[in-house]
Amino acid sequence: MNLKGFLFSTVEAAIKKAGRKDLALIFSEVPATATAVFTTSSVKAAPVLLSHDHIAGGSAQAIIVNSGNANACTGEQGLKDAQETAQLVARALGVDSTAVQVCSTGVIGVHMPMERIRNAITPLVDGLSSGTLDDVAQAIMTTDTFPKIEARSGQAGGVSYTVAGIAKGAGMIMPNMATMLSFIITDAAIEPAFLQQTFRRSVGSSFNAITVDGDMSTNDTCLIMANGTAGNSVIKEYSAEGDTFSSILSDILLSLAKQIVKDGEGATKFVEIRVSGAKDDTDAKRAAMAIANSSLVKTAFFGQDANWGRIFAAVGYSGAEVDQSLLSLSFDDVCMARNGIFAGGDAEARGTEILKQKEFTVSVDIGIGTGTSTVYTSDLTHEYVSINADYRS
Amino acid sequence: MNLKGFLFSTVEAAIKKAGRKDLALIFSEVPATATAVFTTSSVKAAPVLLSHDHIAGGSAQAIIVNSGNANACTGEQGLKDAQETAQLVARALGVDSTAVQVCSTGVIGVHMPMERIRNAITPLVDGLSSGTLDDVAQAIMTTDTFPKIEARSGQAGGVSYTVAGIAKGAGMIMPNMATMLSFIITDAAIEPAFLQQTFRRSVGSSFNAITVDGDMSTNDTCLIMANGTAGNSVIKEYSAEGDTFSSILSDILLSLAKQIVKDGEGATKFVEIRVSGAKDDTDAKRAAMAIANSSLVKTAFFGQDANWGRIFAAVGYSGAEVDQSLLSLSFDDVCMARNGIFAGGDAEARGTEILKQKEFTVSVDIGIGTGTSTVYTSDLTHEYVSINADYRS
Repeated sequence: MNLKGFLFSTVEAAIKKAGRKDLALIFSEVPATATAVFTTSSVKAAPVLLSHDHIAGGSAQAIIVNSGNANACTGEQGLKDAQETAQLVARALGVDSTAVQVCSTGVIGVHMPMERIRNAITPLVDGLSSGTLDDVAQAIMTTDTFPKIEARSGQAGGVSYTVAGIAKGAGMIMPNMATMLSFIITDAAIEPAFLQQTFRRSVGSSFNAITVDGDMSTNDTCLIMANGTAGNSVIKEYSAEGDTFSSILSDILLSLAKQIVKDGEGATKFVEIRVSGAKDDTDAKRAAMAIANSSLVKTAFFGQDANWGRIFAAVGYSGAEVDQSLLSLSFDDVCMARNGIFAGGDAEARGTEILKQKEFTVSVDIGIGTGTSTVYTSDLTHEYVSINADYRS
Repeated sequence: MNLKGFLFSTVEAAIKKAGRKDLALIFSEVPATATAVFTTSSVKAAPVLLSHDHIAGGSAQAIIVNSGNANACTGEQGLKDAQETAQLVARALGVDSTAVQVCSTGVIGVHMPMERIRNAITPLVDGLSSGTLDDVAQAIMTTDTFPKIEARSGQAGGVSYTVAGIAKGAGMIMPNMATMLSFIITDAAIEPAFLQQTFRRSVGSSFNAITVDGDMSTNDTCLIMANGTAGNSVIKEYSAEGDTFSSILSDILLSLAKQIVKDGEGATKFVEIRVSGAKDDTDAKRAAMAIANSSLVKTAFFGQDANWGRIFAAVGYSGAEVDQSLLSLSFDDVCMARNGIFAGGDAEARGTEILKQKEFTVSVDIGIGTGTSTVYTSDLTHEYVSINADYRS
């Protein structure tokens, strides 16, 4: 990975238990074009409120992120703590505090241990180096079992650039542990309005197309910084270079999103849900999300039970327009049901074999229109219940 | 229970495994005023489509109900089977087939064993007696661990009448097993339009205010027959008698609904979720249902984890209008959070004690309006995963 103009640092600030890095800094040596997508929940963590204000101008230069404490449901004090963190980082880096994005993940409802944050800022900034994103990906993990990272290269006008991203999380993750966080950085120069538009579109088909437990967090943040240090001429919309960049960005976000689902709490299956033939794309997404979030469907995946009836039932209550006599369903290439009824033959036995795989696709054709949607999900397992019931004991 | 003019019968038709009654008949000796609420899913079982047509005229005289097969996702053949069942019962009872309501619960996507149904109709009708509803409540059980029954008496113009109800189910219940069914019968004479209106309102605050896993079935049916054999003068709206009847009906439906939640698959907790202070009642119900359906909240209940942060997070993404600085939350009488932040003191320890109880109330005050809603739910447990993952093995 040859990513120019970015420096990284991680330290152990003792926000989490000892022996774990829990505070990380990403710094762009020059101001970067930046945009972000935040949780749409009405209950937003303090750092989300702060970062939302800071990024409104379309630029950023640093991201400070901690794990172990979400600084959510912490009221006025939480907001002051997030502001102070941004100010401390800004002062140490010699930038304006609005150039600093603050992100947190961890326990909800507990005030940030600010003394530990204050003590950690100097070693954190002193430790900045042109290392790799890997250490940062490690430091932002909570219940993640592996760091999530992806990088690609592109060219614009003969100049090479790199796009790299990291992510953490799987839905709400832990008792009082919240959050999906993802940070994308690139040394490419991108026209700001185009960056915002293509980033939002890519988030829609990646991070907004995954679900582990249907729970949205108070802290979800997906953020991109493009600092232009590769020296390319600015990438714009409606150009071959723009298309290339969009494609690279989509690939990275989708890869990170899939990694999150694969690392979903207690997950033993990775399932792609493809809905086609819906009245429109919105209806298709309704149906796909109803399937992906159904506890009954997800426990059937865990039980390797080729239970197409539950999937039709979920489509039925999804709110999507449906004529049940036109529904069809396949597991991978095995048609389980068509025209709303069982396909017959050896479908049951063959479908069950598909569900024994670690990864498979469920395709539902609603049969009335051209709307499509693809979402990714995991199964619902004993381990999920254990992780989420037994955390604080 | 002194319920005039109703006869009951149950037989073993071998739809389910041997030794279990699985076919039941409720017969009113005279045509009864009747109304029903069916699943709003777009994927409706054949008997739901048929019964919906049959009850359109506002009367019914018989209910035939089977467990073991839902006759859902069975196409044209399924509809023919439901029609034939109604015709066989009608002929044996000497009534019009539109006077027969057909209800089914059980496996989805498998055709009804019609030969067994045909053979069972004669013994079923021959067995009609003025016994009790208890046998019927037993015969419609699937994964239910106890029969659900409730009865009350009332008076109208000095004449006594009885209202009795039975129910089965808990959400979608079993792999391929669908359905909440409830049948209410009364010997009171009720004005048809009033019966319909008060029944719908009672269903809204009982069966439509419970959730076990958020999955709606293809077969959900709640049905009432009032045959007037008590001899009272017809009960009408805007009268003391009407208010009394509505109150009795509400009590019965709420009792049956709560019994369903208590018998929810794998449930170890019964939780009442009360939301107040919402913009309006619709918003309050949105928030209450988001809490009740959150896998993270439900696993925290199972883990006896006083995790108010997860509950605020669910309210946040519910779609209800929220100002997070005004949110407050209590477990029974223990205030866990106010003004959006932790209440402090010994709330954590005291809240944890509350969650150790088998039953408790979660009260959320949104603090911006007068909207209220109460819903009932259970926890999400290892046993739920086992029941729903391992069924067909």
